[in-house]
Amino acid sequence: MIGDHLRAAKAECLEWHRSMLAAIPGEIGCGLRNALYGYRAGQGCRVLRNVTIYFPERLKLGRNVGVSPQSQFNAAGGIEIGDDTLIGPGCTFWSVNHRFQDRSVPIRLQGYDAQPILVGRDCWIAARAIVLPGVTIGDGSVVAAGAVVNRTCEPGSILAGVPAKVIGRRESLHELPVEAVE
Amino acid sequence: MIGDHLRAAKAECLEWHRSMLAAIPGEIGCGLRNALYGYRAGQGCRVLRNVTIYFPERLKLGRNVGVSPQSQFNAAGGIEIGDDTLIGPGCTFWSVNHRFQDRSVPIRLQGYDAQPILVGRDCWIAARAIVLPGVTIGDGSVVAAGAVVNRTCEPGSILAGVPAKVIGRRESLHELPVEAVE
Amino acid sequence: MIGDHLRAAKAECLEWHRSMLAAIPGEIGCGLRNALYGYRAGQGCRVLRNVTIYFPERLKLGRNVGVSPQSQFNAAGGIEIGDDTLIGPGCTFWSVNHRFQDRSVPIRLQGYDAQPILVGRDCWIAARAIVLPGVTIGDGSVVAAGAVVNRTCEPGSILAGVPAKVIGRRESLHELPVEAVE
Repeated sequence: MIGDHLRAAKAECLEWHRSMLAAIPGEIGCGLRNALYGYRAGQGCRVLRNVTIYFPERLKLGRNVGVSPQSQFNAAGGIEIGDDTLIGPGCTFWSVNHRFQDRSVPIRLQGYDAQPILVGRDCWIAARAIVLPGVTIGDGSVVAAGAVVNRTCEPGSILAGVPAKVIGRRESLHELPVEAVE
Repeated sequence: MIGDHLRAAKAECLEWHRSMLAAIPGEIGCGLRNALYGYRAGQGCRVLRNVTIYFPERLKLGRNVGVSPQSQFNAAGGIEIGDDTLIGPGCTFWSVNHRFQDRSVPIRLQGYDAQPILVGRDCWIAARAIVLPGVTIGDGSVVAAGAVVNRTCEPGSILAGVPAKVIGRRESLHELPVEAVE
Repeated sequence: MIGDHLRAAKAECLEWHRSMLAAIPGEIGCGLRNALYGYRAGQGCRVLRNVTIYFPERLKLGRNVGVSPQSQFNAAGGIEIGDDTLIGPGCTFWSVNHRFQDRSVPIRLQGYDAQPILVGRDCWIAARAIVLPGVTIGDGSVVAAGAVVNRTCEPGSILAGVPAKVIGRRESLHELPVEAVE
């Protein structure tokens, strides 16, 4: 019983610690988060302000990764972002879903399905994209603003839409109509 | 005239009060918001950090409702969320639209159309979904990440897309192709 | 070398200054941001809390413009919002894209394509819409919640979807089926 209270107090302190860290502006904030938040960060990695991270101990960010403000990570299922990948403002990476197979039990009591998210090297995930559990995004891919990525894609893919579809490939960019790469 | 200044000062204080409340981390924040923010909350309801609520006096959250960070509510038209319903990060519930029928008057001076939003019991509204004025989401429904719900749906619906369409039902889940429930 | 340190310190201070300004609630916050943030604001313009603005010196907001919480602007390419235009919560205006034509160089080293965003007078950009570089939205247009606008549109357009399509015109509103203007 005492143990329960101690655990709850510890969890509360951790939550406050992370909230404070997330609010610190500038390069000072980036440095402190890399050192103290609990995720693994390669050299040159920058996590900007107001980024929410659940289960940071399961989040691995490569070298020179940039994460823009208001992005959100739930790394319960594991999230790995490759070197040089750029993440725009307000993106969501959520590696866990609620289970809802059973209608006779409330969803909140059915537990979770966690599946890892892997984003390759040198990708650009544009503003407000969503990446769902179990998705692997191949090296060098580009995800358009507002896309919802619910499937794995090959390296060099250009994705857009809800749900996201492959609208081009970086190798053959010169063959695409202008509107497809906007 | 003095009355106007007093009203403005009171509104300003209320705004500051709510901003401070919204920023408090952890279970302490959840408890203080339930007690002091002005919405009605059932037992076990948790409203996490950085949730924006306009017109909280018209927002009713059931028992064990969970609201994740960065969600936004405008309850001008009334919003009611049923027991056990789970709301993912960055969701938007907006129960009011601007009127814009008249092109000869600026939209900002045409007033509002408010319509209630009702979300049933035991629903899961996944990350970054948007629910528009007048929508009723039936008990036990699941709304996929990034969906924009602009129509009422029956109990047990599974919705996805922009605008959201019914892509399945929870009763017949075993008949769905795997990709439809992602 | 000393010059580099001074520049970095100055940039850091500016970042902190802006973060603090963005957090101030109420009308006091609106007034201080208009005076001190660095964007140009017409009379009656209100930028609410927790709005992120990069390159504010290239952002021009007209008279009576309203910007709701959690919206984000990157004005590197220039952004101009006309008088009386209303911007809902969580909207994104991003006037710059990463270049990614060359697969042999990391995207983060390829630089940017900046293109101005122009939003006309008396528009309503509803919750969580995204407006991409180079887009001009004509006077009196309405953009639905969650839309991703990647093309220029004429005055009086009603836009919705990902990517946004013209689903109606304000002139002929009485001819539209009810569902088209939701």
